[in-house]
Amino acid sequence: MSYAALHGWFERVGNVRHAQAMLSWDEAVNMPPGGGVARAESLAELARVAHDRVSDTRVGGWIADARAEADLDPWQRANVDQIERAWLRARAVPADLVAASSRANTLCEQTWRTARPRNDWDAIAAPLEEGLALARERAACLGAALGLAPYDALLDGYEPGMSREVIDPVFARLKETLPGVVDAALAAQRDPLPLPGAFEEGRQKELAETLMRRLGFDFDRGRLDTSHHPFCGGRPDDVRITTRYSAADPLESLFAVLHETGHALYEQGLPREWRGQPVGESGGMALHESQSLFMERQVCRGAEFLRFAAPILRDAFGGDREDPAWSADNLGRIAARVRPGRIRVDADEVTYPLHITLRYEIEQALVAGEMDVGDIPAAWNAGMQAYLGIDTSGDFRDGPMQDVHWFTGLVGYFPTYTLGALTAAQLFEAAAEDLPNLDDAIARGDFEGLREWLRASVHSVGRSRGTLEIVHAVTGGELGVEAFLAHLRRRYIG
Amino acid sequence: MSYAALHGWFERVGNVRHAQAMLSWDEAVNMPPGGGVARAESLAELARVAHDRVSDTRVGGWIADARAEADLDPWQRANVDQIERAWLRARAVPADLVAASSRANTLCEQTWRTARPRNDWDAIAAPLEEGLALARERAACLGAALGLAPYDALLDGYEPGMSREVIDPVFARLKETLPGVVDAALAAQRDPLPLPGAFEEGRQKELAETLMRRLGFDFDRGRLDTSHHPFCGGRPDDVRITTRYSAADPLESLFAVLHETGHALYEQGLPREWRGQPVGESGGMALHESQSLFMERQVCRGAEFLRFAAPILRDAFGGDREDPAWSADNLGRIAARVRPGRIRVDADEVTYPLHITLRYEIEQALVAGEMDVGDIPAAWNAGMQAYLGIDTSGDFRDGPMQDVHWFTGLVGYFPTYTLGALTAAQLFEAAAEDLPNLDDAIARGDFEGLREWLRASVHSVGRSRGTLEIVHAVTGGELGVEAFLAHLRRRYIG
Repeated sequence: MSYAALHGWFERVGNVRHAQAMLSWDEAVNMPPGGGVARAESLAELARVAHDRVSDTRVGGWIADARAEADLDPWQRANVDQIERAWLRARAVPADLVAASSRANTLCEQTWRTARPRNDWDAIAAPLEEGLALARERAACLGAALGLAPYDALLDGYEPGMSREVIDPVFARLKETLPGVVDAALAAQRDPLPLPGAFEEGRQKELAETLMRRLGFDFDRGRLDTSHHPFCGGRPDDVRITTRYSAADPLESLFAVLHETGHALYEQGLPREWRGQPVGESGGMALHESQSLFMERQVCRGAEFLRFAAPILRDAFGGDREDPAWSADNLGRIAARVRPGRIRVDADEVTYPLHITLRYEIEQALVAGEMDVGDIPAAWNAGMQAYLGIDTSGDFRDGPMQDVHWFTGLVGYFPTYTLGALTAAQLFEAAAEDLPNLDDAIARGDFEGLREWLRASVHSVGRSRGTLEIVHAVTGGELGVEAFLAHLRRRYIG
Repeated sequence: MSYAALHGWFERVGNVRHAQAMLSWDEAVNMPPGGGVARAESLAELARVAHDRVSDTRVGGWIADARAEADLDPWQRANVDQIERAWLRARAVPADLVAASSRANTLCEQTWRTARPRNDWDAIAAPLEEGLALARERAACLGAALGLAPYDALLDGYEPGMSREVIDPVFARLKETLPGVVDAALAAQRDPLPLPGAFEEGRQKELAETLMRRLGFDFDRGRLDTSHHPFCGGRPDDVRITTRYSAADPLESLFAVLHETGHALYEQGLPREWRGQPVGESGGMALHESQSLFMERQVCRGAEFLRFAAPILRDAFGGDREDPAWSADNLGRIAARVRPGRIRVDADEVTYPLHITLRYEIEQALVAGEMDVGDIPAAWNAGMQAYLGIDTSGDFRDGPMQDVHWFTGLVGYFPTYTLGALTAAQLFEAAAEDLPNLDDAIARGDFEGLREWLRASVHSVGRSRGTLEIVHAVTGGELGVEAFLAHLRRRYIG
């Protein structure tokens, strides 16, 4: 009966998570500025309710008793594991610290939204300092309780079991190899023709929805909206993805949508029978990012997909059949442009890991207290010079203020992007082996086999296995850089 | 210190109410159908959390101790009164019944949304029966705890202190007088010219926002969206109003927006210093409806407002300056058309109270158990025949299924519409006395004086006084039908 008690109790936690997810989405998509303070308080309250539930003293007893129940099936056992993990992490952090963090992070993010366009580092420094102090406090509490170094304790919250021990050698290899790959890619690339016209937002949205549907997004259980920054939010039966539109460049928005669609397919493909239970949630953020990058980078920026998509894009914008700008070849040049730049989210996949390395190094120093908020701009500039040869001095907006993460309390999150890129490349290699006609299917716009493969290999697994376990089960190997580097060489150097 | 404890505790309740309000809004405006089950569970969970908080055993002790504190100011005392009221009502209903009601009502509403267009009474009968059984149960619990008859106990939840004893003589007078007013209005009215053109949704929305802004809606603390049915939701610093658009009739949507703007101005005008506290909330639903009807019926459908608005409307839709269809006189004919019909929300204000009487009589019988769901269609048809001379047999869609209320658990709510209409007429008479140049100001599109008058008389009062007290303080009289009947005779018979 203790397992049943746990199950019922965590169903109620899931119901609170639903509210948190929807309020966060609404904040980014709909909320008028005057609603910000009340929203911060409400989200803090929900964080507190969820935390109180997860850390409830009875949960520990139920876990111990459930473990003694003989008739649990493997999924139920995995669910108890996930519940215990959540319980241990929640117990480690006092409820007041949880609510204070939620409130500080929501308000800091709101400040960031107005300060960033003004390039106003001074306005954000104090709220960021407060958010970081709370993050350090959380890291210390979690580290002590879980026997982890403080930074690893934060990381583990985004990608369970991940540690600097796994990341450091991988990132070192990338840091050493990528500059050469960047140079070779720059030398090999051919300039694309610009896409002609101004691109009306309504048409862009229609096109995006057409391709989302084609990839398998279920609009009965999700929607596409507009926000300042593309993201995938919501819950598995109500997935909310967002994008933004540029009248000059329809591919920017489109690839953002295809990226978020990868996230969304993962959410929509989670095991239905485990809705609302911890074991039924998506895995770590590295695995989540692998799903978006699989779709966007491995599939949709590739030549086969663009062969399928080129006429659809051209017709969506009333392009000329004879215009070479709309050819699959030209779209491929645009989709695979390598351009070292300031902005992580605009970066190509060759330079992207260098942006992550910079952030990974700075946030480790911040958590360790070896660096303060005031030190960030100089460290940022030094890193951008060293890794990408770009001087960012005086530029906060497209420098250390460009990403929302630190300003909303997400510290220890950045490495998951690159771990996701590595995983995506490994998974795509495995898919190509398992599905011999994959290239042809993609070129025909037939994604069913691929989607089923992803569903079986990753989506339907939920949290019944960890990321590294899944990588091993699907690819037979360990997480590493070789598949990723091979992919880069193939696509960018040829 | 007990007052402080109460204050802090109810702030946290307010934070949960914020989440409930936003999730309900999102459900009506954004949610894809597949998200319905999870949403119902989440809303049920939040209802339960709020209920557990309000009914917490410690609250009773804090109330008793707070009452003994000598240094409370009148607002703090009124806040304690409101808290006690909420506490007593919450204690009366078991948490399981609250959650079961929330869940059943959300699911019944979802069924209603698909069953209504199909005219499918059978599909809705069982969920409605379940919802009604739960409403009867709530009425019995509340009635026993508060010493009220079951129907009055429900009514009191929507309009505190209201009872059949107050309503019955008022409604009897309307039932007796209105048929004669309807006949006289039908004889007196002049047919309007139709408005020429098809009306693009984007233009309608722009026009609506222009007039909302003009009336004083603060877009920094609110927004306008589209839903199946117009409503005003959200919270005072983030008010969400909705409408729907008809390409054939731009006034339908516009008056709906102006109606909801009346609700919204009330919310936005609530006392800032009491945000999140019970005394800072809007009053009963009759008072709320008085604010929407004040704006829509008393102000915006009147000749002075239409003199101001006619050229704005004409220009918004590119109408011809010489076209008499766009004259204030013709718009006035449209705005004051009397047409006995099936649909309450489309009804003019002369026949509207008869729609309410029908519902009031049926829902009393339902709560008393004198009538069951199966009896509703026949009773509906009999009432529509008797009051409006309309045969509705076989028509469920535009008969008893037309309103969402019963299908979402709102039983005892309908009378507040007509009480609101009476109150609006009384308040407008008082405003016209206090503001001698009111007609001129409205005709010039200057609403500041009127808005400040409403703010001082009603909005800023919050719940520090009851509806009947406010009516008395502002008008010097009691709630009654005379001002309303005089308004009807003036506008519709002349």
